[in-house]
Amino acid sequence: MSVVKSSLPEADLKLVGEALQGSLVDLLDLSLVAKQVHWNIVGPRFRSVHLQLDEVVTTARNHSDTVAERAAAIGVTPDGRAGTVAAQSAIGTVADGWIKDTDAVRTLVDGLSAVIVRMRERIRVTDQPDPVTQDILIGLTADLEKHHWMFQAESA
Amino acid sequence: MSVVKSSLPEADLKLVGEALQGSLVDLLDLSLVAKQVHWNIVGPRFRSVHLQLDEVVTTARNHSDTVAERAAAIGVTPDGRAGTVAAQSAIGTVADGWIKDTDAVRTLVDGLSAVIVRMRERIRVTDQPDPVTQDILIGLTADLEKHHWMFQAESA
Amino acid sequence: MSVVKSSLPEADLKLVGEALQGSLVDLLDLSLVAKQVHWNIVGPRFRSVHLQLDEVVTTARNHSDTVAERAAAIGVTPDGRAGTVAAQSAIGTVADGWIKDTDAVRTLVDGLSAVIVRMRERIRVTDQPDPVTQDILIGLTADLEKHHWMFQAESA
Amino acid sequence: MSVVKSSLPEADLKLVGEALQGSLVDLLDLSLVAKQVHWNIVGPRFRSVHLQLDEVVTTARNHSDTVAERAAAIGVTPDGRAGTVAAQSAIGTVADGWIKDTDAVRTLVDGLSAVIVRMRERIRVTDQPDPVTQDILIGLTADLEKHHWMFQAESA
Amino acid sequence: MSVVKSSLPEADLKLVGEALQGSLVDLLDLSLVAKQVHWNIVGPRFRSVHLQLDEVVTTARNHSDTVAERAAAIGVTPDGRAGTVAAQSAIGTVADGWIKDTDAVRTLVDGLSAVIVRMRERIRVTDQPDPVTQDILIGLTADLEKHHWMFQAESA
Amino acid sequence: MSVVKSSLPEADLKLVGEALQGSLVDLLDLSLVAKQVHWNIVGPRFRSVHLQLDEVVTTARNHSDTVAERAAAIGVTPDGRAGTVAAQSAIGTVADGWIKDTDAVRTLVDGLSAVIVRMRERIRVTDQPDPVTQDILIGLTADLEKHHWMFQAESA
Amino acid sequence: MSVVKSSLPEADLKLVGEALQGSLVDLLDLSLVAKQVHWNIVGPRFRSVHLQLDEVVTTARNHSDTVAERAAAIGVTPDGRAGTVAAQSAIGTVADGWIKDTDAVRTLVDGLSAVIVRMRERIRVTDQPDPVTQDILIGLTADLEKHHWMFQAESA
Amino acid sequence: MSVVKSSLPEADLKLVGEALQGSLVDLLDLSLVAKQVHWNIVGPRFRSVHLQLDEVVTTARNHSDTVAERAAAIGVTPDGRAGTVAAQSAIGTVADGWIKDTDAVRTLVDGLSAVIVRMRERIRVTDQPDPVTQDILIGLTADLEKHHWMFQAESA
Amino acid sequence: MSVVKSSLPEADLKLVGEALQGSLVDLLDLSLVAKQVHWNIVGPRFRSVHLQLDEVVTTARNHSDTVAERAAAIGVTPDGRAGTVAAQSAIGTVADGWIKDTDAVRTLVDGLSAVIVRMRERIRVTDQPDPVTQDILIGLTADLEKHHWMFQAESA
Amino acid sequence: MSVVKSSLPEADLKLVGEALQGSLVDLLDLSLVAKQVHWNIVGPRFRSVHLQLDEVVTTARNHSDTVAERAAAIGVTPDGRAGTVAAQSAIGTVADGWIKDTDAVRTLVDGLSAVIVRMRERIRVTDQPDPVTQDILIGLTADLEKHHWMFQAESA
Amino acid sequence: MSVVKSSLPEADLKLVGEALQGSLVDLLDLSLVAKQVHWNIVGPRFRSVHLQLDEVVTTARNHSDTVAERAAAIGVTPDGRAGTVAAQSAIGTVADGWIKDTDAVRTLVDGLSAVIVRMRERIRVTDQPDPVTQDILIGLTADLEKHHWMFQAESA
Amino acid sequence: MSVVKSSLPEADLKLVGEALQGSLVDLLDLSLVAKQVHWNIVGPRFRSVHLQLDEVVTTARNHSDTVAERAAAIGVTPDGRAGTVAAQSAIGTVADGWIKDTDAVRTLVDGLSAVIVRMRERIRVTDQPDPVTQDILIGLTADLEKHHWMFQAESA
Repeated sequence: MSVVKSSLPEADLKLVGEALQGSLVDLLDLSLVAKQVHWNIVGPRFRSVHLQLDEVVTTARNHSDTVAERAAAIGVTPDGRAGTVAAQSAIGTVADGWIKDTDAVRTLVDGLSAVIVRMRERIRVTDQPDPVTQDILIGLTADLEKHHWMFQAESA
Repeated sequence: MSVVKSSLPEADLKLVGEALQGSLVDLLDLSLVAKQVHWNIVGPRFRSVHLQLDEVVTTARNHSDTVAERAAAIGVTPDGRAGTVAAQSAIGTVADGWIKDTDAVRTLVDGLSAVIVRMRERIRVTDQPDPVTQDILIGLTADLEKHHWMFQAESA
Repeated sequence: MSVVKSSLPEADLKLVGEALQGSLVDLLDLSLVAKQVHWNIVGPRFRSVHLQLDEVVTTARNHSDTVAERAAAIGVTPDGRAGTVAAQSAIGTVADGWIKDTDAVRTLVDGLSAVIVRMRERIRVTDQPDPVTQDILIGLTADLEKHHWMFQAESA
Repeated sequence: MSVVKSSLPEADLKLVGEALQGSLVDLLDLSLVAKQVHWNIVGPRFRSVHLQLDEVVTTARNHSDTVAERAAAIGVTPDGRAGTVAAQSAIGTVADGWIKDTDAVRTLVDGLSAVIVRMRERIRVTDQPDPVTQDILIGLTADLEKHHWMFQAESA
Repeated sequence: MSVVKSSLPEADLKLVGEALQGSLVDLLDLSLVAKQVHWNIVGPRFRSVHLQLDEVVTTARNHSDTVAERAAAIGVTPDGRAGTVAAQSAIGTVADGWIKDTDAVRTLVDGLSAVIVRMRERIRVTDQPDPVTQDILIGLTADLEKHHWMFQAESA
Repeated sequence: MSVVKSSLPEADLKLVGEALQGSLVDLLDLSLVAKQVHWNIVGPRFRSVHLQLDEVVTTARNHSDTVAERAAAIGVTPDGRAGTVAAQSAIGTVADGWIKDTDAVRTLVDGLSAVIVRMRERIRVTDQPDPVTQDILIGLTADLEKHHWMFQAESA
Repeated sequence: MSVVKSSLPEADLKLVGEALQGSLVDLLDLSLVAKQVHWNIVGPRFRSVHLQLDEVVTTARNHSDTVAERAAAIGVTPDGRAGTVAAQSAIGTVADGWIKDTDAVRTLVDGLSAVIVRMRERIRVTDQPDPVTQDILIGLTADLEKHHWMFQAESA
Repeated sequence: MSVVKSSLPEADLKLVGEALQGSLVDLLDLSLVAKQVHWNIVGPRFRSVHLQLDEVVTTARNHSDTVAERAAAIGVTPDGRAGTVAAQSAIGTVADGWIKDTDAVRTLVDGLSAVIVRMRERIRVTDQPDPVTQDILIGLTADLEKHHWMFQAESA
Repeated sequence: MSVVKSSLPEADLKLVGEALQGSLVDLLDLSLVAKQVHWNIVGPRFRSVHLQLDEVVTTARNHSDTVAERAAAIGVTPDGRAGTVAAQSAIGTVADGWIKDTDAVRTLVDGLSAVIVRMRERIRVTDQPDPVTQDILIGLTADLEKHHWMFQAESA
Repeated sequence: MSVVKSSLPEADLKLVGEALQGSLVDLLDLSLVAKQVHWNIVGPRFRSVHLQLDEVVTTARNHSDTVAERAAAIGVTPDGRAGTVAAQSAIGTVADGWIKDTDAVRTLVDGLSAVIVRMRERIRVTDQPDPVTQDILIGLTADLEKHHWMFQAESA
Repeated sequence: MSVVKSSLPEADLKLVGEALQGSLVDLLDLSLVAKQVHWNIVGPRFRSVHLQLDEVVTTARNHSDTVAERAAAIGVTPDGRAGTVAAQSAIGTVADGWIKDTDAVRTLVDGLSAVIVRMRERIRVTDQPDPVTQDILIGLTADLEKHHWMFQAESA
Repeated sequence: MSVVKSSLPEADLKLVGEALQGSLVDLLDLSLVAKQVHWNIVGPRFRSVHLQLDEVVTTARNHSDTVAERAAAIGVTPDGRAGTVAAQSAIGTVADGWIKDTDAVRTLVDGLSAVIVRMRERIRVTDQPDPVTQDILIGLTADLEKHHWMFQAESA
């Protein structure tokens, strides 16, 4: 079923579509991981990091919606199902159970790091085929790098 | 690492903890499925169902947070990781790609139905061991059943 | 026309449906009676009781919507038509024309009293068949009993 | 008990009072009918019409309060009791049970039509005796005719 | 200095201008009198009437602004200076010092009564020359008559 | 295609429909002209008039929506297309390019003046056939005359 | 009728009461004068000064309420009737009719100046007898002097 | 003086009344203790715990109001006087003077623990006599146990 | 443990610290007493006084937080524990059980009176040692005296 | 009259100015067309599309303001007069009279399509001369393409 | 250029003007220093202190505006240029580069300390010449001392 | 102390870091200069420009925070101390003392001009090394150029 007529030529579409689909998976997993840590964190900095993690969740959820709707807008169907997220995320599986606040911070530094590396590559490849998509990826990467700094600053 | 002292005896704790963990998985998957359909739906009722699905997402996200924090509050660590959700959800895997509005509505009716059956059982088993948890499950089931009615009413 | 599949067995459904339908009628009439007195009250306490009555109206309208949608959610069609309300309400017909503030307060004490007696019975009978409905009835009864206290306190 | 001194002469008062009392009954019944359909509607347009009906309810409730208080303000006691509404409304009794969305729309077109015909007559008769009351009736008729258009547009 | 070109002919302008100037003076004095009583009232109904009076003040201030700007809009300079208000108001001078709540209510009934009689005459004379001004006077008279009813209802 | 049944007889409908269609065109053009001047104005009063013009835009846009929906409500299809606006507006074509603040104010005084003359005639002709439409025209003319005064006051 | 027991001795009470009563009259007149100019101002700075004057009105009205209620709080009945304001205000009678923007600004500079001189004296005399009243007078004088600066800055 | 007619039989009333009175005392003391620690806490986590404590205060104050009004609603007079609170609270007297952040957290864990034990018993005993009261106690216990978890998580 | 370095010399500190500690106790007890009466009041003025008392509670709670944090800010540990409040409050123990509205008003007049006398003394003694603290005490006394007037006005 | 000094060289300025002027015309016409359809649409999806169209209007109006002010900011006078819009828009003239909902959706798909093609070309040509303007065009194209997807999804 | 006529005599003016100018410089520098630390802080308490510092910034910016406008209001031109701030601030130059959280807290304790000492002297010298200015300085010192306490409490 | 790991290679980092540091200094000085003029401006356009300047302050403060946090996010420590700002700003030192409104406008045109020239260069050099930073600089330059236009338009 071909539904939405793309404003991009076929070759560009594939490339841009993959960048968006990859971003969607990473952002959805980031939102799940941040919530997982939000619930299981323990230690003296519990409250501070607990609150900070919900800001990551908000960032990740909002941007996941934007990239998924951008994919649809150029005629590519986004896939954000649990199985897809589990299989393709940039973020390795985090441990379950209580997690110490220092480990929690490190988990986020690592997770954000892995996503940012991929996002910078996606910014690079979308530059020519679709500056509109690229602009969305640039904007969300700025937010991810800001969270990344804050968790690093807390580890210093 | 035993962190949070439960106000429940061991046996009750296991039972209540399983009810909460199961609810968490079902609600997280419901939020992912509803978003998946929200992005991929097509057909004359696109806009109406697209908006309605975001209300399901809001319901599912809010209640998933409540049950996960309730689990932590009684000393049970919640597990809301993508892999866990993919493996244990009450909702079967939904198809990817564009989805007709009539199919979208049916998908939600079925998904909510499966979750509600499990929730009613969880309400039953938590009655004696922990009325506080039961009250949370009762409140969220009321919301799920309301969404369930609305999608059914649209199929009539 | 059978539209909404109930999550309750037939026998329970009838019982719970009657409790909800009865609650709907009582709450709708309470909203009409409170408005009637709101408009016709006279006497030194006019303003104070006039405002208080609008809070009863808000309570009654909100809860009537909740119980009607709960009925639909379990597959029972609610009936809130004027004729039905006039015929089945727990509250006796109030007099028309101007009403003294002391009589206004007494009217509300009596009207709320009649509704509360019925609500407590409905809480009792819904306990086993449907704790979700029961929880809704418990919550609205708490509000009605609070209004009941306030009007009694004003009569002291 | 004669309480509020009217700023209108006796003859005018009767005429204007009847116009307001009639408007009150029609608006209260409109609010009850719109809620009845809001709860019982089924069909593909469920959500859209369900929401639209709540806007009719809001319109009807707000204007019913205005006309009732206007009646009191000129010394006429308004009567908005369930029995009065059931007996005197311009809107015929609607069927109970589930109602198809197309029937729901037609029910509203007919109900609004019946009320508007009466309102236009009331605007005519209040012109000389009380332009203040007439202005209120003109304002609310504009709202009713707007709803009337919208439901007709949906039937086209 | 002739500044604003009127959209009304000379004769109509004089008539409409006087109606607006008279309304301005009455409304400004109403706001001062209501505040005077708001500050000096004593007695068991102190709080209730104290708050009610501030609603009169709000009504009077808002409408005084509207009529003054309407005068300017048709090219007539409004005069709302203290001396003018003191000299030309419809409301007789109220006593100074503490005022019993029952007297406070009566003072407002009488003051509103005097203003309403004048406003109804102004509505009558502006009908032909300027329906725009008339519509403003109709709207504010509805508000004044509503306050008038409420203070009368409290005296019953 | 005859869609919306009018509550007005044929002859009245034509007259009222023309008044509304004319108002729509004038208000849409007023919104475009005010924006044009808002963007191109220069001179010491730039900021003050720039802001004031956006209030004219808001007034014109809101009232254009009201009159268009009123036309639809009585069964007349409104026409607010750019070509229609360009051809039928009461406001003469304004110059392009930068515009001095004093010229900007004069442009608005003249534009509003031309629209107000037409509106007053429309108020006159709709009085008998449709007081509901007339009331809408009266209300928006009050707003236009207020803006008219303010721009004149600035020219003094 | 002696109603409110003062927390001040008799001699102090008279002095503080006079300071408050004088402040009340000056502030009420300031609000009337600022509105009078707000409505009648013309000239290129119309809009800017028109808006600025409403901020003076807000300041004057809020502080007049505070000083009147402070008088009542120490057992002195405030007098804010139109005749009292006209007779005792620090601000000389302003001219009626249109007023040029430059004259408008000068009128406010002079009016505020006259009030401030009196307020500084009232601050001086209330220091010993009642620091609570003094604190209120200090706060409002800061606001008046800020408005005074702004109108002076506009005259430079 | 017997004022409010209870909807409960005498025996049930005593039992439910004691549960509510006990809850009131515990919640009021919790609000005082949390404020005491909020003001006196020192140490590196000062700001984080200082803010968290105000959320406990809000929870405790809101629920204390609810249980006190529930007591009144069933005809039992609540007693929340300082002496009563000091004498009957579940929370032992906390030390005065500066308190280290780690001690502050422990104080809250212990205080909440003591209150929760009593609340769970109150939930048990109110189940049969008054499900309405029980529902209120269940809801507030959920909140207390959530705070309890958070302070424990901070101690890990 | 000496934590916060005071900006006041030792002698001044003791004096100012006692003024703040005394204010804290009086304000906390005022908030408890006002709530106690808020819950137990009966009589025709129930609603009016019930609402008024919650404004006293808000005033007392806000100012108690300000004075306690001011104490901490100058290096004095505040003590707001239930036992301290019960032992040192300016307000005598109020009776328990239902309280007639007239008695409720008198209770507040007396309680506020006792606190105000102490507050005025505290304003006197803090003038030289710490004008910053004095300014806070002056501001809150203004609020207390306003409430005092209002309850007295209601007793007239 | 040369007023605003551009930060761009002459050649770039012409190119960028044309891109902005073209965008302005297309966006203004889009807002007029969307309103035209908003008022004249009929059919079962009336309400859904009626509301959706107002979101297009909001998008188009906001972005038209941004591009017009951007033109002024680089020293190019924007032209948004009705005649210019009618002559230069990318969107062909739409039919007048009632429009079926399916036709309404198609009209928007076509109109948005035509504008998007032009916008993508404008993004291309502004890249080198003015990345600031390009960024604005990229942002608004993302919004247009999102609307485009939604109307296409509804046609599937 | 002498613009604003002072309400203070020449000698007082100089003294008060210097107090305000000194306060302005200290507050502006405090806002810059707090931002500098807000951006460069690292360590486990990063987030908590990062947020706390923005509250200092808000306090410092708001009060700097108040004192600068107070200076203007009494006819003294405030000087808040970067060079002036760098040359005259009470706060010594802080180091650049990353700053540990413990050092960050100490930096703020020291900076606030230096400013508070100066502010207390300014309160002393403005008492006689200008109680209005003094009141402003007292109010802002209360805020600074509250921040000072909080940073000290965190160092304990 | 190396704290935050940059996602940029060393060479790029230096270049991007300098662009951000330069932007920070210019924006902080712009906020100080705009405030300086905001406080000292005199002349007929005082109020209009006084308000406009606060919008520049808001723009400059918000963007300075964004660029400083962006610097930190890529591992470069921002330096926004008063001395640094005084030494390195693009804006020349402005005169102290009262400033005529025409001079005030010219000061802003010149200051914004100097900053914009530098910003456009920074946009150019950050394009390849870091599109995320470039996007931030593009966005803030759009705002600066809009302010620049407005002050120029006022000078025409």
